Amino acid sequence: MAKKAIVGVLGASGYTGAELVRLLLRHPRAEIALLTAERRAGLELREVFPQFAPYAFPKLLAVDGIDWEKVGLDLAFCALPHGTTQTVIKKLWQTAPHTKIVDLSADFRLKDIHAYARWYGQPHQAPELQSEAVYGLTEHHRRDIRKARLVANPGCYPTAAQLPLIPLLKARAIETDEIVIDAKSGMTGAGRAAKESMLFSEVSEGFNAYGVGHHRHMAELDQEFSLAAGREVTVTFTPHLAPMNRGILATIYVRGRRGRNAQDLHGILRDAYAKEPFVHMLPFGETPQTRHVRGSNLTFIGVAADRVAGRAIIVSALDNLVKGASGQAVQNMNAMLGFPETTGIEQVGLFP
Amino acid sequence: MAKKAIVGVLGASGYTGAELVRLLLRHPRAEIALLTAERRAGLELREVFPQFAPYAFPKLLAVDGIDWEKVGLDLAFCALPHGTTQTVIKKLWQTAPHTKIVDLSADFRLKDIHAYARWYGQPHQAPELQSEAVYGLTEHHRRDIRKARLVANPGCYPTAAQLPLIPLLKARAIETDEIVIDAKSGMTGAGRAAKESMLFSEVSEGFNAYGVGHHRHMAELDQEFSLAAGREVTVTFTPHLAPMNRGILATIYVRGRRGRNAQDLHGILRDAYAKEPFVHMLPFGETPQTRHVRGSNLTFIGVAADRVAGRAIIVSALDNLVKGASGQAVQNMNAMLGFPETTGIEQVGLFP
Amino acid sequence: MAKKAIVGVLGASGYTGAELVRLLLRHPRAEIALLTAERRAGLELREVFPQFAPYAFPKLLAVDGIDWEKVGLDLAFCALPHGTTQTVIKKLWQTAPHTKIVDLSADFRLKDIHAYARWYGQPHQAPELQSEAVYGLTEHHRRDIRKARLVANPGCYPTAAQLPLIPLLKARAIETDEIVIDAKSGMTGAGRAAKESMLFSEVSEGFNAYGVGHHRHMAELDQEFSLAAGREVTVTFTPHLAPMNRGILATIYVRGRRGRNAQDLHGILRDAYAKEPFVHMLPFGETPQTRHVRGSNLTFIGVAADRVAGRAIIVSALDNLVKGASGQAVQNMNAMLGFPETTGIEQVGLFP
Amino acid sequence: MAKKAIVGVLGASGYTGAELVRLLLRHPRAEIALLTAERRAGLELREVFPQFAPYAFPKLLAVDGIDWEKVGLDLAFCALPHGTTQTVIKKLWQTAPHTKIVDLSADFRLKDIHAYARWYGQPHQAPELQSEAVYGLTEHHRRDIRKARLVANPGCYPTAAQLPLIPLLKARAIETDEIVIDAKSGMTGAGRAAKESMLFSEVSEGFNAYGVGHHRHMAELDQEFSLAAGREVTVTFTPHLAPMNRGILATIYVRGRRGRNAQDLHGILRDAYAKEPFVHMLPFGETPQTRHVRGSNLTFIGVAADRVAGRAIIVSALDNLVKGASGQAVQNMNAMLGFPETTGIEQVGLFP
Repeated sequence: MAKKAIVGVLGASGYTGAELVRLLLRHPRAEIALLTAERRAGLELREVFPQFAPYAFPKLLAVDGIDWEKVGLDLAFCALPHGTTQTVIKKLWQTAPHTKIVDLSADFRLKDIHAYARWYGQPHQAPELQSEAVYGLTEHHRRDIRKARLVANPGCYPTAAQLPLIPLLKARAIETDEIVIDAKSGMTGAGRAAKESMLFSEVSEGFNAYGVGHHRHMAELDQEFSLAAGREVTVTFTPHLAPMNRGILATIYVRGRRGRNAQDLHGILRDAYAKEPFVHMLPFGETPQTRHVRGSNLTFIGVAADRVAGRAIIVSALDNLVKGASGQAVQNMNAMLGFPETTGIEQVGLFP
Repeated sequence: MAKKAIVGVLGASGYTGAELVRLLLRHPRAEIALLTAERRAGLELREVFPQFAPYAFPKLLAVDGIDWEKVGLDLAFCALPHGTTQTVIKKLWQTAPHTKIVDLSADFRLKDIHAYARWYGQPHQAPELQSEAVYGLTEHHRRDIRKARLVANPGCYPTAAQLPLIPLLKARAIETDEIVIDAKSGMTGAGRAAKESMLFSEVSEGFNAYGVGHHRHMAELDQEFSLAAGREVTVTFTPHLAPMNRGILATIYVRGRRGRNAQDLHGILRDAYAKEPFVHMLPFGETPQTRHVRGSNLTFIGVAADRVAGRAIIVSALDNLVKGASGQAVQNMNAMLGFPETTGIEQVGLFP
Repeated sequence: MAKKAIVGVLGASGYTGAELVRLLLRHPRAEIALLTAERRAGLELREVFPQFAPYAFPKLLAVDGIDWEKVGLDLAFCALPHGTTQTVIKKLWQTAPHTKIVDLSADFRLKDIHAYARWYGQPHQAPELQSEAVYGLTEHHRRDIRKARLVANPGCYPTAAQLPLIPLLKARAIETDEIVIDAKSGMTGAGRAAKESMLFSEVSEGFNAYGVGHHRHMAELDQEFSLAAGREVTVTFTPHLAPMNRGILATIYVRGRRGRNAQDLHGILRDAYAKEPFVHMLPFGETPQTRHVRGSNLTFIGVAADRVAGRAIIVSALDNLVKGASGQAVQNMNAMLGFPETTGIEQVGLFP
Repeated sequence: MAKKAIVGVLGASGYTGAELVRLLLRHPRAEIALLTAERRAGLELREVFPQFAPYAFPKLLAVDGIDWEKVGLDLAFCALPHGTTQTVIKKLWQTAPHTKIVDLSADFRLKDIHAYARWYGQPHQAPELQSEAVYGLTEHHRRDIRKARLVANPGCYPTAAQLPLIPLLKARAIETDEIVIDAKSGMTGAGRAAKESMLFSEVSEGFNAYGVGHHRHMAELDQEFSLAAGREVTVTFTPHLAPMNRGILATIYVRGRRGRNAQDLHGILRDAYAKEPFVHMLPFGETPQTRHVRGSNLTFIGVAADRVAGRAIIVSALDNLVKGASGQAVQNMNAMLGFPETTGIEQVGLFP
């Protein structure tokens, strides 16, 4: 058997952290050597996530005291709150410059550090590192990801929106000034912080929009859509919360350009993803359900014609904790460490 | 105490039927004298809806054998499947022409019987009755409703979409060719028929669109929007199913006309509904949640600015079984029988 | 119209507080004159419970500054955390001794103040008031409740367990040393405090027991069961949390005494509750579902024979926020103020 | 790589069938060569279970026309309705006697064919095969399973009840005449048949018992408990349905025998399962949650002391579709075909 990579999960007490552990525990080429969790330092992992009780893990540590050189990680996953990763990576690389990083926070997603400051309300702490960060939408940036030392894993909404739209924008197939993205997410997308608005009794049996007109993921969408289209693109984007744990469904309204109809758009996407193991195109006219990708690294995409001439409705579905976060992070790790990209993330959707 | 109206519920074994019973049982001016349910005829109501076990009701009957003259209903609610109401009402009026009707099916919603045939796949059975039917969106047609013998109660999606859009269309305040309505419904909207796709395990923990590009409620929207706008309006409308029992949230994307911005649109709606007991406007920038109107006849509406200049995002929330069906039906009954419109439907939302 | 009672809700930002407001807002004999909420003082009620947005209420106050004499409440509902009510009532009665109290906390439920200290971990702050407190299981103590100035509203689990068991214990119809109560509750029973274990994503799609062997409600059960049986009774009681908002289902395992079989037990309960408006006995062999009493003040009780000879399985269902808390509190208010006991709490169950 | 076993899934359109496919698709030693589904014959698997859309499978067949000899299965999983498996296997073995069988129905679980007739309402169709069937609770019968041609996979409730009780009964550590098993199941345990009572809107936000006093799984419990105890054992067992997809929680009330206390019982179970990969004992006093074993083949067991002296409360949790059905079926296949028992079923629980 090939030698295993030594990896660490920074921020193992949150949902994306736990999902990384779930995937890495059965990854044939990786071994978890380090787990951190600031407020839970000193505890065993099973005390914060009982599903891991049967397995052996290192105790949860605080980031501060770690001797990065000694730990000698091949790769670290950072599932830390926005704003803290910048500082942690900076310090880590002072003594362990060969440790590769997949960062699941938003800290290195925006190439423009002023945009970062504007959307996240604080100046960037490591502008010198930003320049070497590669945006980690694997299907579209894998060539750069393979050579990267620092990959900024995309947000869950941006992954659900970019996978269907990037090929269409690249092909100049849709109008860029009337794209509407109406996205619905399960509650794990909101994290594990104990907030009243996230209590079961506040969430169950109800549905709502939030961050209407000003959600932070817009910054990421602007950047990548503009890059793909070769011109500035500003989309309308509204996130919603659905009473379920996992899943994002993005319903996307577009108008074809230069006579392109819905079927043409379907064809472009089908061709773009024909060889991709984690993007599955449904037959024209069918649309996906989040439940069918739960627990898997797959994105399902469907395209249907709107009855309004020239318009199409595109629907994408993924698991926000897998392809929308930790699964894509492992996919990026596989690319960075030279493993086959599907290694350890081939689980089939858990339905029902 | 004033004399009570004698009412019947035709189709009492479905969800809208049960909701009518729930409301009428505590309505101070109505008394339930008749309940029908074709496949459950002969049973007691508590056998199909155990929540009614403590109360006394007439046995469930089949429609066919009923002597309408003898029953002498002041008003009948028809919560029957689409297509059957037309025949039932025709026969009922042969011997009981003074019985008023609130029809909760789609049978009399479309003024154009050809549109009915096209969208519902069968010729209209009672075109002569269609002409006297009044569309029952109470807030906008109450003058006609008060004088009507037959009111066609609106669909749940159309109610959620029309309440925010009708005043804007009437005011010529929004562009009519790029309205996008992304609507999400709880499962009771799909009825009580035993279908695999509606089983708990198929629905829970997932989210999906359906009827993309061709849902029947579009016909109703076309008719009423065009009427309000004074010109033909065709909107983009996508329904979705959320894993919850009750509630519709409609997220509506519009562009202001002639310089109208989101705040202007909010002002138009605030003025239009200032005196309406069942439509509540949230402060500008806030958007509603379905859970807060559960079990009530209220619609909450919010308006926020999109970051794309000139565009606004409007969100409406209602309970599909109450304002979206049975509550509005009782509201219409109140108007038709000369009762104060809020009688018996003033319950506050049940949250959590 | 009869003069309305002036009432206050202390602790209006929790779920039982909101449920009191929901019921009182439509109560024909009560008017809400005061709302308190410590950490939310100064806010409007709609800011903590948006379902109340369309209605006018006094602002939320802190308890400390209130001039009780001036407010002149006829009755105050205390929906405060355990331990604080004792002090609040003591002070309230110094200047407003005629204000009657329904306390929804556990502060006055235990007649033995040493038992209180043992189970709640702190000495009782108002032992002199404990002696005048009446335990508020309305069906079994209404004679005392009508004359009481202070009623200790029962807990939700104890209500679900006592309604079926008290008549059987009084009739000496079951063995007292092998009663097993396996109870399941919706999440609102755990309150509105922002705790990680109560987040939607921690609760949804799962089921668990808690407080196994040592839940505080046992103290209340011991007291009342022993009183009913005329001898010391200690039951086995295990609470569980189900992924739903409302509802308690108690599955109770008993053995008949002196040849009493399950049908005999059913007969005793049927007779005991024949005239009770809020307790409904199902036909022998049928058992209830929590969903059918949601939002109502009803308790449904069923009795079935176990296949083990001499044993019976009794199942009770109620809404923990209504009959298990705020509905019973209003029922007690009605009794204390001389209103018909069902006033304002006759809502039918909201299903689905 | 070792040669793969050729396997078939009979009844692939139900939930246990789909779960078998999910597990077998990633099983390194098995290859799916045959899928059947009577009413869906002719369809592709993705048409009945869209989560499998990205993968290639044989079309769904009807059982009747299959040439078993030609198909040459090493092993067939029967996930067929009760009553049909007996006939199918009989015919299969006429031409393919070397095909091993894991039957997930109840058809071969009861050694006493008269008990089968009594509980399942029809005479046994293959009594000659019953005699060679081995009961498939792997942890307790693996020696026989390894040599078996036909394994009767246990029911989900029986697995959850037997794993904690069998070692205690074998050790004569608990009284056998007052065992109470209060079990709660997710909805997938009720199958995929389209029944009104299983619709989302009938199930969500509610909880109920069913089959009180007479559930079929009792027969299986009687048989295995009596075998373990060496005397006839009849337990009290009540199943409940919780509004979740997956999971069984069994809360079991027992009394220690000859002075055995709860901690002693914990010790017996800890020793019994010390080397079992799929049974995990929690520390004494802790109890498990179903959510932490979702999607995994694990059973978590906890033991706590009751406050009633001499009594203990034991709680077990498993995923009804995995350890309660298809996971255990694959575990049995592994044993029967000589693979390491954990092969292909080592997935970690999917939480949240």
